[in-house]
Amino acid sequence: MSEAERYEVRFEPDGVAIDVPGGANLPFAAVQAGLPMELPCGGMGQCGQCRVEVIRGIRPPTPDEERCLTANQLKSGVRLACRQKVTRDLTVTLGDQVRSRANQIMVGGESRAVQLDAGVERLVLPLGKAPLGDERDDWTRLEQLAGRPLRPSLAALRQLPTALAAETGEVTATLVDDRVVRLEAGAVARPPLGYAVDIGTTTVVLYLLDLTSGAELAHAAMLNPQVAYGDDVIARIHHAGVEAKGVETLHREIRVALDQLLRQACEQAGRSPSDVFRGTIVGNATMTHLFCGLNPRGLGIAPFAPVTHESVTAPASEFGLRAAAEATVTVLPNIAGFLGSDTVGVLLAVMAQPEQTCLAVDIGTNGEMVLYHNGQWWGCSAAAGPAFEGARIGCGMRGAAGAICRIDVVDEQLNLAVIDEVAPRGLCGSGLLDAIAVLLEAGVLDDTGRFDEADHDAGLGARLSGDGPRRRFRLASAAESATGDALYLTAGDIREVQLAKSSIRASIEALLARAGVGYDDVQKVYLAGGFGSFLRVPSAVRIGLLPPFPPDRIKAVGNAAGAGARLALISRAELQRAAELARQIDVLYLASDLVYQMQFMEQMVFPGG
Amino acid sequence: MSEAERYEVRFEPDGVAIDVPGGANLPFAAVQAGLPMELPCGGMGQCGQCRVEVIRGIRPPTPDEERCLTANQLKSGVRLACRQKVTRDLTVTLGDQVRSRANQIMVGGESRAVQLDAGVERLVLPLGKAPLGDERDDWTRLEQLAGRPLRPSLAALRQLPTALAAETGEVTATLVDDRVVRLEAGAVARPPLGYAVDIGTTTVVLYLLDLTSGAELAHAAMLNPQVAYGDDVIARIHHAGVEAKGVETLHREIRVALDQLLRQACEQAGRSPSDVFRGTIVGNATMTHLFCGLNPRGLGIAPFAPVTHESVTAPASEFGLRAAAEATVTVLPNIAGFLGSDTVGVLLAVMAQPEQTCLAVDIGTNGEMVLYHNGQWWGCSAAAGPAFEGARIGCGMRGAAGAICRIDVVDEQLNLAVIDEVAPRGLCGSGLLDAIAVLLEAGVLDDTGRFDEADHDAGLGARLSGDGPRRRFRLASAAESATGDALYLTAGDIREVQLAKSSIRASIEALLARAGVGYDDVQKVYLAGGFGSFLRVPSAVRIGLLPPFPPDRIKAVGNAAGAGARLALISRAELQRAAELARQIDVLYLASDLVYQMQFMEQMVFPGG
Repeated sequence: MSEAERYEVRFEPDGVAIDVPGGANLPFAAVQAGLPMELPCGGMGQCGQCRVEVIRGIRPPTPDEERCLTANQLKSGVRLACRQKVTRDLTVTLGDQVRSRANQIMVGGESRAVQLDAGVERLVLPLGKAPLGDERDDWTRLEQLAGRPLRPSLAALRQLPTALAAETGEVTATLVDDRVVRLEAGAVARPPLGYAVDIGTTTVVLYLLDLTSGAELAHAAMLNPQVAYGDDVIARIHHAGVEAKGVETLHREIRVALDQLLRQACEQAGRSPSDVFRGTIVGNATMTHLFCGLNPRGLGIAPFAPVTHESVTAPASEFGLRAAAEATVTVLPNIAGFLGSDTVGVLLAVMAQPEQTCLAVDIGTNGEMVLYHNGQWWGCSAAAGPAFEGARIGCGMRGAAGAICRIDVVDEQLNLAVIDEVAPRGLCGSGLLDAIAVLLEAGVLDDTGRFDEADHDAGLGARLSGDGPRRRFRLASAAESATGDALYLTAGDIREVQLAKSSIRASIEALLARAGVGYDDVQKVYLAGGFGSFLRVPSAVRIGLLPPFPPDRIKAVGNAAGAGARLALISRAELQRAAELARQIDVLYLASDLVYQMQFMEQMVFPGG
Repeated sequence: MSEAERYEVRFEPDGVAIDVPGGANLPFAAVQAGLPMELPCGGMGQCGQCRVEVIRGIRPPTPDEERCLTANQLKSGVRLACRQKVTRDLTVTLGDQVRSRANQIMVGGESRAVQLDAGVERLVLPLGKAPLGDERDDWTRLEQLAGRPLRPSLAALRQLPTALAAETGEVTATLVDDRVVRLEAGAVARPPLGYAVDIGTTTVVLYLLDLTSGAELAHAAMLNPQVAYGDDVIARIHHAGVEAKGVETLHREIRVALDQLLRQACEQAGRSPSDVFRGTIVGNATMTHLFCGLNPRGLGIAPFAPVTHESVTAPASEFGLRAAAEATVTVLPNIAGFLGSDTVGVLLAVMAQPEQTCLAVDIGTNGEMVLYHNGQWWGCSAAAGPAFEGARIGCGMRGAAGAICRIDVVDEQLNLAVIDEVAPRGLCGSGLLDAIAVLLEAGVLDDTGRFDEADHDAGLGARLSGDGPRRRFRLASAAESATGDALYLTAGDIREVQLAKSSIRASIEALLARAGVGYDDVQKVYLAGGFGSFLRVPSAVRIGLLPPFPPDRIKAVGNAAGAGARLALISRAELQRAAELARQIDVLYLASDLVYQMQFMEQMVFPGG
């Protein structure tokens, strides 16, 4: 099969068709067609969630499909999207359950009030004030109207003759960092706009702000289209490194996405991208490297060195952006290759000027955390795996419609809360935590992570089945679930959670040990990110993911990374503070940290009841 | 005829064909086909020089063609290129005499030695000097190798991982104004290059320089392709103002020309445009406005205000250049709307730090002049008309092959020197000056500019014929000329020269009067530009174009404007000096200058013998 050949992929019931190069995978084609799919396990053929019905071009099932799908499903043409390479024309039906729900991406975030100073200034200059014709040149005339020297951009010089000739009585100058970048005839009432972006490995969120008030006008979010090239940062770094033009491809995907989000947010707010003058970007170092078009190779191998720690500021066009191409865009500084500007954003939002010992924890595929104590800062990042994002968990899924997000036990009966109150089709991170917590409390699970081996006729134990490593706990029957298959929590799922939570917990312990700080000394614990916001703190403490901090000291702060990007957008002092924060953090390298290694073993066990 | 229609124009004997929009003129099509034509009168249908043979698509002659061409020529299909609008498919033969000779454009210029400091620095850093893996990021590693902090461009950050990974033992950083703009693996031996450009209304010259030595590697020159839109600055300003996208069109023409010249010069020198890091541009204000994409409207009407006087620096790409798009390009400052950066270039080359009273004069379609005396500077610009460039003179032409460039009288016989020693086909500026000088000396012309009315059988007077306003002097017979038609100097030609020379001379007188300086006080007179270099000083003084300065104080300095651009390219101190020079000149507005007005009348008369 030649890579140069192209095939048609048609998506039903939308009736959208698209040509893609031979060898592309089906989720890639879906992103290209504007129909991004949910890939809970990141397209690894593990979770069995990305089911599609193949109408044209069906092939015999792969081993992964035979493992994940029932015989009936296989017979009726159901396949896993992530296992379909486009080597022929395809027509598939996308069910609702595989469509990505970008609108459920966490966008709100804890923040604080700051002095507005975006460095974007508007001068409305009445032309009548200075007599015509007595200046040496047009620009000098403008400076005399403004009563101060002004530095022009070439674009502003190009606009000047028209702005002056319009004879509207006024001319409006827009300055960015004291340089005139736009001149318009008349008194422009539209406020200058800016955007703040949080580029996540999985999701991208853009906030559109009025720079004269700091108010959010709109936000827009979408799956990061780079998911088609790999689920996690390691896969992206790999793609960038091994594919011809890998960096260019991933760079293009994210800048096209940003253009799209900006246009979408502007449309939503009834504004034009041409009124956008500034942008700020946060993300993990791999995401910001790819946004800058920098090769992330160094981030994939020890010592995980980024190309630069410093913030990068350039015209949007230099980043390859086409919407608001003249805006000045700043990528915030990172702390280390594995502690990105998203963590700097979190600190800016909730820990910029701490007065007491506090800890910020952002749990995703990696867990990033920073501790402040007594004027000093320590930070680290732990590989947690994607269990809390629903991946590598048999019935795991992201926090979208149909996800079991809360579990309580009432009268020995499971009480499931499902997002959008539909029939359950899987278990998201917060539901997973609750499940394990209630099973530990009920004694169905012991502290080593083993299921009760005894037979039970009633109570929760009656939901157990299977033997040894195949033992599993039924969350919902086939009749109760939306998929027609029962939903189970397996011994393997428990093991994944043990690995993930012990890694996060051991990192926290390592930070506390380095600072010489006990649990009680920590006055505030900020949980950032979607998972941190939805989890139930008692469950997190019950399974040992978090130390037994007093619950009232723990606060979910939502998308604090995005909130930090917004602060840096509307205040140059905050942007400056971001650079200071990034520089002052002592980074722990967990691979060589003895406390971490010991704790990682110890924390595999769940706390006793 | 619809503007949207396109027609084919074929040029023989080259066999080059091109499609152009209906309504374009033939010289425009020729420029597009890469065959620019000479238009001595700027395409006004006046000079009759732009003759072509129309093979396909011939039309009856226009009144201009009937005036300029003989019946035999008309019958055999000869027409004037400037009178042909492309409203049908055309095939024409271009004779050698109408092809532009860019290689005869004046490129050499008087200059001086300066301290080399182009602001472009090369650092070759041996990678072995710092141990691998102990730096926080790649950029810090580079800084440690360099032993100093470095500021990166986004492009340099993009090149860094590859440059470090190549393991060539070295990495080469190129810095422009202390910012790293390029990183390459290995020790780069190729020196960084720069270019200096003089954008004339008629011709464009580009010099390619080695920035480590200041040496010229190559130069390239061409007709300014904007000539297709008008001969002089007024026509260009008009086109920019009245045509839809007029500014964009003229801007595009000149940037495409610069790209072409740079590639041509690089090829000639065996170098790549990617090694070019800096450029400097001089030209009259209309030319630099159009290069910047600035509307030159203000330059066409009193008070002739430019958009800005200041120098403009931006990446080449912002000017729309594609060759060496990342180079930093600076347009030098201008003095006034009618005293451009080309005049600043002249001053930089020959009068940057004068120690005695001196005068620089650049005679073209306009005459620009600057006087220095006793720490003060005065400058002005006079509209001279294009007579000295061969236009509006019956047999006038530019200084190309076949032009009579020197005339002496030996034994009452005319002795003509012709460029390239071929049969004469016209008279260029220096020949025109000589012609009038010898006719004044011989008494064939009196000091009011009237031809001798008497009949003569011998001597120069025998070459006179016609009566009253139709009286004329034969320079060459039909048999002697290359065109098959006799070459005459007419009473009308004399009148054009009187107008032109009295305007130049009156301007000089106005400057001297303003400074309170007599002829003898002027220690040096610099004649810049092609005409100033080729004219014979005694002839210029004889006809009163120049005051009777002692001849040994007058010095031709060639393309000093281009030489100044070169100095500003290789030395930031000179670029700084250019800004100071531009600011310190007192500009005389001749329209309201009494000395100029009186002198303009007085100088119409030729000096007595």
